[in-house]
Formats: sequence, C-alpha cells, structure tokens
Amino acid sequence: MKAISILGSTGSVGVTTLDVAGRFRDRFRVVAMAAGRNLDLLAEQVKHFRPELVSVATPELAKELAQRLGGERVTIVHGLEGATAVATHPDAEFVMSALVGAMGLRPTLAAIKSGKDIGFANKEVLVIAGELITAAVRENPSGGPFRELPAERFAAITIEQALKHPTWTMGSKITIDSATLMNKGLEVIEARWLFDLTAAQISVVIHPQSVIHSMVEMIDGSVIAEMAIPDMAIPVAYALAYPDRLPMPHLKQLSLAENSKLTFEEPDLGRFPCLRLAYEALASGRTMPACLNAANEELVAGFLAGKLRFADIPGHLESVMARHPNSPARTIEDLLETDGWARAAARELIAAKPVAA
Amino acid sequence: MKAISILGSTGSVGVTTLDVAGRFRDRFRVVAMAAGRNLDLLAEQVKHFRPELVSVATPELAKELAQRLGGERVTIVHGLEGATAVATHPDAEFVMSALVGAMGLRPTLAAIKSGKDIGFANKEVLVIAGELITAAVRENPSGGPFRELPAERFAAITIEQALKHPTWTMGSKITIDSATLMNKGLEVIEARWLFDLTAAQISVVIHPQSVIHSMVEMIDGSVIAEMAIPDMAIPVAYALAYPDRLPMPHLKQLSLAENSKLTFEEPDLGRFPCLRLAYEALASGRTMPACLNAANEELVAGFLAGKLRFADIPGHLESVMARHPNSPARTIEDLLETDGWARAAARELIAAKPVAA
Repeated sequence: MKAISILGSTGSVGVTTLDVAGRFRDRFRVVAMAAGRNLDLLAEQVKHFRPELVSVATPELAKELAQRLGGERVTIVHGLEGATAVATHPDAEFVMSALVGAMGLRPTLAAIKSGKDIGFANKEVLVIAGELITAAVRENPSGGPFRELPAERFAAITIEQALKHPTWTMGSKITIDSATLMNKGLEVIEARWLFDLTAAQISVVIHPQSVIHSMVEMIDGSVIAEMAIPDMAIPVAYALAYPDRLPMPHLKQLSLAENSKLTFEEPDLGRFPCLRLAYEALASGRTMPACLNAANEELVAGFLAGKLRFADIPGHLESVMARHPNSPARTIEDLLETDGWARAAARELIAAKPVAA
Repeated sequence: MKAISILGSTGSVGVTTLDVAGRFRDRFRVVAMAAGRNLDLLAEQVKHFRPELVSVATPELAKELAQRLGGERVTIVHGLEGATAVATHPDAEFVMSALVGAMGLRPTLAAIKSGKDIGFANKEVLVIAGELITAAVRENPSGGPFRELPAERFAAITIEQALKHPTWTMGSKITIDSATLMNKGLEVIEARWLFDLTAAQISVVIHPQSVIHSMVEMIDGSVIAEMAIPDMAIPVAYALAYPDRLPMPHLKQLSLAENSKLTFEEPDLGRFPCLRLAYEALASGRTMPACLNAANEELVAGFLAGKLRFADIPGHLESVMARHPNSPARTIEDLLETDGWARAAARELIAAKPVAA
C-alpha cells in the first residue's frame, strides 16, 4: 500500500491521479492533498478519499472548507506552508507535483528534501530551478528512481509531455502554452534537467496525431518510442505504480488501423518564437529560465484576462528577457527574486500597451 | 572479451556479425564459424578473423578450403557434425544462429544444451521446434537472457525482424518469403515461442517505410516501439553486446525529417494466403509448423530453380498441409520425420505440374 500526496488535486493531472488511485484502492492510499480555490471539487474529493491533511489557498477558504466538511476527520491548512505540509506529510512515499507554475517550487523542493519520490507534472519547477532541484534529488538517497532509470524508461515519468493535444481537457495555462509552443520550450528545459542532457541533445518535432509521446535515441542509432492514446491516466498510473504497470481495461486501445498515418514536421521557429526564446533561456542559464517562466506566466494570465493580445505574448516575453540582468542562481531566493522582477516587468508592459476595447 | 561462434558466417547476418565484431575487436573474439559453399568469402573471413574452428558443407569443400588456407592454424570440419562442433565450441559464450532454414535446427539445439547464449537470426528453428527449443532454454541456466528480459527489450533480440525491406541485400530464401508474406508468418510463430504468447496476442501490421521494426503493447495500453534505419548491424550489435549498446557512428542516423510520414495497414490475407497458413499451422500445433516450414523451403527452392511459378507457392503449400497427418512432436526426430515427409510431398507437387518452358 503506497501512501501518496497530491499537490494540485483539483487540476487535470490531480483529478487523473485520484481516478487511478480510486481504481486501485488496494495499492494506493491518499494521505494528503493541496488545491487552490475549487472548494466544490475539493470537498467531494476529501469525502471520497478521506486524506488526513488538506491544504487550500487562503485562511478564508480553509474556514469555508471546514464548514462544508462538517464532521470529517481531516486537518485543514492553507497557503504555501499548507502546501509544503502536504508535500512533506510523514506517511507519504510519493508526491504528485501537479500545481501550475512557480507556486509548485517550494513544496516540491521540500518533498524532495523529505526523501519523497516525485511525479513531476509541474514542468515549471524544473524550468525555474532545474539545477537546484536535481542537486537536491542527487543528495537525497530516496530520490533514487530518476538516477537509476534506464534512459528509455524516462519517457513515462515526464507525465505532462502529452498534455499538448488540443482536444484534451487541460488547464488554461497549458492550453495557451501549447498554442504558443512555449509548452514545448518548457519541456526542452525540463528534459535538460531530468535527463542531464545538453540543449543540442534535445530535439522538438511536431507530430499532429499525438500518438508518439516521446522518443529516446540510443548511441547505436536505435530509437525507442512510447506510443499510446492521448490519456494522462497511462503515465500517471505508471508513475504511481513504477516499476509496475497497471491494467487499464477501461481505456480505449491504441489502434494503428485508426491511426494509419503518423506525420512529423520541424517546428517553425519564425512562427513560434516562444520555442526559440526557451532555447535561448536554456543557453543563457543562471536566472534566465526563471525569468522566462515568470514573464510567461504573467503574460498568459494577462491574455486570459483580456488585457493582452495572443500575438503580443512572444514580443513582450522577449522584451522582458532582453532587460533581465542575468545573474547566478545559488539559492531558491535568487530565483524567486528573479521571478518577482520578471512578473513586475511583464505587468508593466501589459499596462503600457492595453488592448483596445 | 566475449568469444562468439557464427553459424552461417557467409550469409547476410553472418557478414554483419563479423563486421560488428571487427569494429569492436576489444570486445569480441570469433572462435568458430560455419558456412555452406561460399569458399571465396569464407577463406577471406578465416584469414581476417583467425577462428580456431571452421565448418563447411561437405568433405570435398573442407579439403579445398584446407588447400586454399595453406599455413593458417585452423581446424576444418564439415557437415551437420561440423556445424554442431562450431555451435558447441567450448570457448564460445554466444552463438549467432544465422543458418537458413531447417539445417540450423540441430546445431542451435546443441548450442542451447551447451549453455550458450543464442542470437536467433534463423527463425525457422523456432518455427519447426519452438516448444522443444524453449524447453531446452528453460532447462539451461545459461539460457537466461531471454527469460529475464523485460518484454519491451525483446525487440532487439529478434534480429531478423527487419530483414523484409525490399531494398536490402538479403538471402534469396528470405527475399521470396518477404514477397509471399511467409516471412511475417514465420515471425508470428517465432514470436509465439520467444515471448510465450498466444496467437491472438500477436498482430501483423504492414509498414512500408520500415522505420518501426517492432512494437510491444503493455497491459496499461502503452506501446513501446523500436525504430531505426533498416540496417541489421544495429540489432546484431545489440545482441552481441547485450545489455550494452555499442556506438555506431558509421551508420546514418534515423531522421524524422526524411521519414516524415509513417503509414500502417492491415495485411490482406486474401492476397497473401501464406500468412493465413502460418497462423493455421500455429493453431494446429504439433508437427504442423515443421510441415509448413519444410514445404515452404522446398517450394521456394523450386521457384528459384525455375520449376514453379511464384503464384503456385501458396496453393501447393496449402495442399501439402491439408495432406499432412498432424501428430505429436515429442522429439527432434518426430519433427525431422515431418520435415522429410513435407519436402517429399512438395517436390512431388512441383514435379507433377512443371512450369511450361
């Protein structure tokens, strides 16, 4: 019986994680979960999975959740401290890190330092602090699964790789990132840290059918590919049960008769400058990836709030990066300082050039 | 330094095996090789690789080879006994079984019983005697690599799977088998034994670009595929160095820009009855797969000798199978009796209906 904590239980990956845990109740026990503001769904999840610890965004939400849950025996906490308590719950062996954006950074790092196995569904954490995170994993004996994994099996851990499909129900942030190709750019930076690669070793290929989710080229020229229907339940279940695979008879099988043509094309960096900017941030290193991520989060939020045109995202992002005084990233505090600076810079640009009403 | 024996050194896989061994002389030593009648190439191979033991088809050829090699310190043997001596050379740890057709059966079985690791490049051996061969592997502790191999890595052992490509230089038998789809049929039977599957678990898909060489579907619906340029050096090197992979910088890399469209189609069993007959032989079991294989070998030889039309191969094969009194296959002798019966039956059909001059 593996005890699991979920950071981001009401998001797309969190819901999938609970679905898998619910189908295999003899294998998994949910001991803690953190969510943001979706109390309706969270209250339902708590009643169903009965975790010991739950965290929400604010003290007000914590109070409201306590009222809604009435007699449930559950400890309710809030904020960054609350999410960190969920991430470091003493019973948890596995933490699904599925918060969106930079807010996942501190809880995930705390989980690593507590010796938990991590399911990385929050790529921004590795984009911002890849070096610090991987160093923490190396220092921590229980961080083992990543270090000893043969290269061809890594594919299944990066559980968000397939989230780009336009027909999927995904969070709004990743949907926009998919449209700008920033999502692929974030994954390039993530892959650099997860698999200890150089940028030159990582290629992006556009594959509209979303049947092949990842490929690893071996030194002998052989390429091992992972193919499946585009359903996050498969990589989530593999991450939870690793190294086992769980039977998933409720899912549709991949049919090559139905997918009789798979196509590939090079990404057009002219049309999608965000991917180029991600490669540049990776090449610059230091605090630049954190700058890229924070500015992108703000610009996407601005676009979703109607304050910015979609086509302005890449140009604004490039402006923020051009002005960023890149500096060494020795601590999480260095990175969070850059995060704050880049958000302010992005908001300034949005305010200076509002969308015509 | 791994000592290897090669059954069929002058054939396509044998030549590739020697090429890999020659590129990695610090890892591999060729101690014995068996060939048929191609003395020109064999003499050159012996001078280059200096094995201790060499076998050819007949005593006359053995004498001629001895004269050609003059002062070389090499023991020359011949026939089935000679090939068996090569297969069981006391120093050999790995035997590449790359003879064509039923003649590989006894030497390969002898190699297994001597505790060698086997590279199966001769699928007919498993088609004829899959049950006996796999039982021998199970009984033999050194037969281990196959049993402990995770399913997704099996792909690389079945080194002949990609041999179907029409642009490859292949032996004539397999070229004809590819054209009739019998090659795929033989691989279905082979896969049944190599991976302990039922016929229903094995699917054939036509993939004209020959980029994906094998796929394994996991219980969670995930499919792991092996892709590469169609060059046997890759699986041969992996079989030799397993579990390591060897760098192959002399080979062209797989480019998805050049292979930007991969297609798949169901095989047409009406147009290619040989594949259907192979499934039927597998379902019948007992001596029927040996009957299928022997009749096919004779019919292909008859076609290559101009005694039979290509289009007659499937019908003649079906006739021989229909007349075969299927019976239990308890020993290799049972299987070889069927082999002889089916060859005679096929030759009779060829003689009864000669091609018009």
